Amino acid sequence: MTEDSDLRHREKMAKKKASRDRLMARKTGAKGLVIVHTGAGKGKSTAAFGMAMRCVGHGMKVGIIQFIKGAWDTAERRVMEGFGDLVTFRAMGEGFTWETQDRARDMEAAARAWELASDLLSDPSYGMVILDELNVALRYEYLSLGTVLAAVAARPEGQHVVLTGRNAQPAVIEAADLVTEMTMVKHPFKDGIKAQKGVEF
Amino acid sequence: MTEDSDLRHREKMAKKKASRDRLMARKTGAKGLVIVHTGAGKGKSTAAFGMAMRCVGHGMKVGIIQFIKGAWDTAERRVMEGFGDLVTFRAMGEGFTWETQDRARDMEAAARAWELASDLLSDPSYGMVILDELNVALRYEYLSLGTVLAAVAARPEGQHVVLTGRNAQPAVIEAADLVTEMTMVKHPFKDGIKAQKGVEF
Repeated sequence: MTEDSDLRHREKMAKKKASRDRLMARKTGAKGLVIVHTGAGKGKSTAAFGMAMRCVGHGMKVGIIQFIKGAWDTAERRVMEGFGDLVTFRAMGEGFTWETQDRARDMEAAARAWELASDLLSDPSYGMVILDELNVALRYEYLSLGTVLAAVAARPEGQHVVLTGRNAQPAVIEAADLVTEMTMVKHPFKDGIKAQKGVEF
Repeated sequence: MTEDSDLRHREKMAKKKASRDRLMARKTGAKGLVIVHTGAGKGKSTAAFGMAMRCVGHGMKVGIIQFIKGAWDTAERRVMEGFGDLVTFRAMGEGFTWETQDRARDMEAAARAWELASDLLSDPSYGMVILDELNVALRYEYLSLGTVLAAVAARPEGQHVVLTGRNAQPAVIEAADLVTEMTMVKHPFKDGIKAQKGVEF
């Protein structure tokens, strides 16, 4: 009886230790995160840009694919160009605002952007890949959700990927490690104030 | 009778035009915005950092006062230092995490940070002033809400000010032009994943 209960106690302790070890192994391992910025509020692309700059400060290589025109402005590009080879930036949305009636043309542009994106997602030299406004392309079914999620899942270990844009699909949120929703509480355009340099562009 | 109605019509049109002119004047004028990033989610300081970088890309001078230790990391500082005189950064929260039991010491630190902040808020050479985590200092009443709001209201025309931190006070939201709430939808720490370079720090 005493021996039995001692054995049981030791087994229980061993199990606890194994469980704790597994937890610590997970906690200490470097892991590439899937990050989603969604919601109707501001700051989705701006926070992604801030993360890109933080990576650059760590000497990590960052790739940014812009799926819609206008979210990244000349001022941001100017800053990114200052970091030379550390930042790869591709704006695929030139003249392309999702407001066109030409769905075939939009889908072609999205496919071209995705081709570049999937190159970055299979290149282990990139520490972070930002797919800006990809959520919108997925929402309009300009790209296949399955293709995108498979490429994200198969990316190099340790690579962070950031997906921005309103209306993130449930499967995207499911696949993500970190999801932030930006909600608009108050917006100056509603009071008739024009977009301001340094804030809006 | 015809003359009367003609006069009334012209008066009405003149009033409409004046109203439209006033609206357009507001819409086209440069206006320094009060911007608040609040909520329990991530991206509040990161989006402010992204805006700072955007301003720098426009050649605007940016001042950043960090009211709590840790929100801005060495990688971000390294990037900011690259812009020389365009960026003024002061971390007032060294060794100061709001977890101390020494309220008098915390209030002194907050007062020192505020002194610097109010210098920037009265210096027209700064295009943007970021008061990072100020909302927390206000919430704990380490600073006077009235003093802060008066300084923000009296700042140079055209200067943007960004206040970040959870639990923005209603009076701060009232005074703001643009308020975004960052909500946490999903967070990796809950799954036992350690903070990752380039994302969390």
